[in-house]
Amino acid sequence: MKIKLFFILLAALCVSKSYAQPLKEIKIEPISWWAGMENPFVQLTIYGKDINKTTVEINYPGVNLIRVHQVENSNYLFADLEISKDAKAGLVPIKFSQNGKVKFTYNYPIGTKSSAAGIQGVNNSDLIYQILPDRFSNGDKRNDIVPNMRETGLNRDSMYYRHGGDLQGIINKLDYIYDLGATAIWLTPVLENNMEKASYHGYAITDHYKIDPRFGTNEQYKSFVEKCHQKGIKVIKDIIHNHFGDQHWTISDLPFKDWVHQWPSFTQTTYKDQTVFDPYASSLDKKKMVNGWFVKTMPDMNQENTFVQNYITQHVIWWVEYARLDGLRLDTYPYNYLPYMKEWAERMKLEYPNLSIFGEALVNSNISQAYFSGGNKLNQGIDTSLPGVIDVSVKDAIYESINGQFGWTTGVNSLYSTLAEDFIYVTPENNVVFLDNHDLSRSFSILKENLSAYKSAYTILLTTRGIPQTYYGFEILMKNFCDPDGLVRSDFPGGWQEDRTDKFTHEGRSPEENEFFNHFKTLANYRKKTSALQTGKLMQFVPEDGVYTYFRYDSNKTIMVIVNPTNQIKTLDTARFKERLQESDSAMDVLENKIFRFEKQMDIPANKTMVLELL
Amino acid sequence: MKIKLFFILLAALCVSKSYAQPLKEIKIEPISWWAGMENPFVQLTIYGKDINKTTVEINYPGVNLIRVHQVENSNYLFADLEISKDAKAGLVPIKFSQNGKVKFTYNYPIGTKSSAAGIQGVNNSDLIYQILPDRFSNGDKRNDIVPNMRETGLNRDSMYYRHGGDLQGIINKLDYIYDLGATAIWLTPVLENNMEKASYHGYAITDHYKIDPRFGTNEQYKSFVEKCHQKGIKVIKDIIHNHFGDQHWTISDLPFKDWVHQWPSFTQTTYKDQTVFDPYASSLDKKKMVNGWFVKTMPDMNQENTFVQNYITQHVIWWVEYARLDGLRLDTYPYNYLPYMKEWAERMKLEYPNLSIFGEALVNSNISQAYFSGGNKLNQGIDTSLPGVIDVSVKDAIYESINGQFGWTTGVNSLYSTLAEDFIYVTPENNVVFLDNHDLSRSFSILKENLSAYKSAYTILLTTRGIPQTYYGFEILMKNFCDPDGLVRSDFPGGWQEDRTDKFTHEGRSPEENEFFNHFKTLANYRKKTSALQTGKLMQFVPEDGVYTYFRYDSNKTIMVIVNPTNQIKTLDTARFKERLQESDSAMDVLENKIFRFEKQMDIPANKTMVLELL
Repeated sequence: MKIKLFFILLAALCVSKSYAQPLKEIKIEPISWWAGMENPFVQLTIYGKDINKTTVEINYPGVNLIRVHQVENSNYLFADLEISKDAKAGLVPIKFSQNGKVKFTYNYPIGTKSSAAGIQGVNNSDLIYQILPDRFSNGDKRNDIVPNMRETGLNRDSMYYRHGGDLQGIINKLDYIYDLGATAIWLTPVLENNMEKASYHGYAITDHYKIDPRFGTNEQYKSFVEKCHQKGIKVIKDIIHNHFGDQHWTISDLPFKDWVHQWPSFTQTTYKDQTVFDPYASSLDKKKMVNGWFVKTMPDMNQENTFVQNYITQHVIWWVEYARLDGLRLDTYPYNYLPYMKEWAERMKLEYPNLSIFGEALVNSNISQAYFSGGNKLNQGIDTSLPGVIDVSVKDAIYESINGQFGWTTGVNSLYSTLAEDFIYVTPENNVVFLDNHDLSRSFSILKENLSAYKSAYTILLTTRGIPQTYYGFEILMKNFCDPDGLVRSDFPGGWQEDRTDKFTHEGRSPEENEFFNHFKTLANYRKKTSALQTGKLMQFVPEDGVYTYFRYDSNKTIMVIVNPTNQIKTLDTARFKERLQESDSAMDVLENKIFRFEKQMDIPANKTMVLELL
Repeated sequence: MKIKLFFILLAALCVSKSYAQPLKEIKIEPISWWAGMENPFVQLTIYGKDINKTTVEINYPGVNLIRVHQVENSNYLFADLEISKDAKAGLVPIKFSQNGKVKFTYNYPIGTKSSAAGIQGVNNSDLIYQILPDRFSNGDKRNDIVPNMRETGLNRDSMYYRHGGDLQGIINKLDYIYDLGATAIWLTPVLENNMEKASYHGYAITDHYKIDPRFGTNEQYKSFVEKCHQKGIKVIKDIIHNHFGDQHWTISDLPFKDWVHQWPSFTQTTYKDQTVFDPYASSLDKKKMVNGWFVKTMPDMNQENTFVQNYITQHVIWWVEYARLDGLRLDTYPYNYLPYMKEWAERMKLEYPNLSIFGEALVNSNISQAYFSGGNKLNQGIDTSLPGVIDVSVKDAIYESINGQFGWTTGVNSLYSTLAEDFIYVTPENNVVFLDNHDLSRSFSILKENLSAYKSAYTILLTTRGIPQTYYGFEILMKNFCDPDGLVRSDFPGGWQEDRTDKFTHEGRSPEENEFFNHFKTLANYRKKTSALQTGKLMQFVPEDGVYTYFRYDSNKTIMVIVNPTNQIKTLDTARFKERLQESDSAMDVLENKIFRFEKQMDIPANKTMVLELL
């Protein structure tokens, strides 16, 4: 154990070597590796001035240098290593020789893989709380501005600048998050984004093995995960396969031209997911979608290339192993090269069978959404092996259910119909249900700042099938439309010492905010101990007269949820639900904390979603 | 051949026995059968006063009485026969004895099956013209009112009464129909509907072996099909598995209680197709959907019962064999018991491999629509083996493309996206594309009586993938919203001798009507001789700036279709379409009949859909 820590320290040292310095030294990624991986192979990306003029040699028991690849750029070598299960943790000397003379020796750290069983996975028992680290809480003012980085401005008045939130800030609020009812945290990316502008969002990675120093350090990230685990909170890392930041060291000096997707002139993706599965798509449209760049500052990686594949895959494995992550959220999923994503998912599963993975497929139809999810029968071409997707269909349907007028396909019929289509997923319960995130309008605004509607929406979120995900600040009624996106990325009031109000506390919140906060907290904590709401089966009934009724049930409990988003009290015929009510004549109203008696007919208050635990 | 005709005549005689007479005689259905069927078994439904007190005996070479079933009602027997391939055509004496004495002998006609190869099937080369026979043309005034039938009123002023249209009227217009460009006719049901009210629509069948005498006779129907075939027109029969008319003889005197779906009190279907596939549906909701009655006067058949199954299946086979039909349109498809429908479809395929079948699934999502189509990968439960469905998704998308405003998911992006989802069908080309029918608002009304929009919609219909279907009167701009449905079932002006205008003729049509008529006729007849528009591949391009471009192509020709439903001239970059344009520098504008030259950019007129044959 001590040895392992030692080598991790060494790895961190390696990472600190700056590529911006003259290339007297050698940079190698992954910055360390482990013996005992299911897949014993690792491909090192080796970078140094005219490194391809050297010969590479390794002499270490259990470590076998299989092949060294030369590429277009003389400053790169790719070395394939096989590390046997019984290779001892230690420093592997990698010798670089020229004309028979050793010019440098790089001591490459290897450790021993920890038990994969320790990776627990995020599942239906969880509630995810998403945080944009720059905007949540500033726990360490010392890292607000880091000299020598490209963006040093800090301006909380501008939505495009950094605001100073960091890992320490999040660590400080773990009790708050757990108390609210969340059991998993998803941070938008925290790896180095040494970009000139708008580096706060984290999606333009410039170093895959380094936490952005404005958020903290690798060690602090690892410690953040440990602290989360101690409190019963799991951690989800945000992974971007599709693109790097244009200031990434491999982009500034490309190993070879096809490391990224090249176009005669800048060509943006069409963002048309349809071209991925459309049997009638033109080649150019298909190519533009997947190979076009997301934005100008984020080069689109050529995932058809095995060097790129290895580079990306290995950094994900590195972080899971290093920090003991529970889940991965995959950014811009449909823009990836799917055969690679399939292989990638299978490789992750091989190493970490319990690791949870869900993809961001921000698409506009349930068919498209299902196409990208793994194992389903839609994909006549490819099975992505992706365990789950973010459930845009259910999100839209919840909004329509509450904001819409009841009709044949509208109002609550929308949610009913969307869930009825779940047969197109193999594991719909792996889908992440949500109402908003950092790229979408805030749910409170979409629901017209109507508190009853808002309560209903989150009540559905916590009681329907899937893994619920919330977005920081929803609990204090943070609002705004995503136009531009900075508007939905405001600071959490109280996250900064200088803030005048602290909405992390009861006192800091308005009565209306507390009303919702307590509503959500009650239900989320009830869900935490109620297996029927986690892994229980779902049964839903055809909506009638604007009211939608469903049950979650298992051998322990049966929970009845009645959604009445209309402005009228509605009367339901109780007999219709006999199949689930069975002999129950009363229930506990979970949100009102009082007994509810079933009569022949039941009155459902207007603008209300009731949660009844059958007695 | 002579022998065969003789027995068909005899069969017709049997059919003419009225069940309304005292039951001194025996009624048997199917009214005749054939040796040489792939499936040698046939189940006779035998009806006569206390018939179950008799013993049945058959003595005829090649005909084997396997079993006689007694059921609840003493007036019924069901007899299973096996007819060997080499059984000779003739009259099979079926003897009914009591106490050892023969009480009646029924001479049951069997013929010899014709070659199934003669059934050609309706396919992508076809254009379907749907007719509501009561409302199209009155060719025989003598059958307008048939005494002794329950409804004898004739009133062209009321949309609910019969108007007098008939088979002879349609026969008279076959040249008109073929000239317009259609190659297949789908008649809404023409079997006897001896109902008290609204018998004109035909969906409440009271005799499965008899053309309604107000439309004509069995012989005339057979002759109608022959005349169609002579003119190059195929015939599609409308089949209803789900329900009978409540005046059907087997309903008036049920063979057994469970012949139909029984409910404690009248229970209507929920019309919620979702319950069929919803993994979360309640048993009661599922049951209501499939077993609930469509309307009060149409008992819902218990298709789980093999007697009911045989009864329905055999009448379909009977009509295909008797009249040499090319295709079947299945009414109210989602309301059927799917395991039976699968078996049924397979049995039809066994007898008539080329017979076309498409189902009416008037549903609200592409997923639901695909669920009911056969062979696809959606159905984790059942494969319906249904070759095609009516394409409601494409219909809605065409309307949205033309009526809607262009946006990320709206306007032409709707049609583009819907077709992109075709991967969920195994044979999307079997889907029947359409804009309206007897149950929907007229397309001219939906398109706001805008002639350019209307031309565009029908241009898309004739050039996109699938089998196009039109509804009588569309060609003369018949309009109205389907509220109530009678409004979209008006008489075709000129179909009645007394009509003051005859819109079957150029002179009878207004200039605007002729403009559209000729537009459609030109394109439909062009389609008739252009394989690329029939079986050609489709390639579509991501819509840009409100314009949607697609190609149909095969080794003979490449057709480019450009849809610009906006109010502005749009300019397209020609290079984008290189993959299909290849070296073409000009095209024939099919609708304008002039040469179109490809420049670097092409201007597309506002509110227009262009059809260009590449030169």
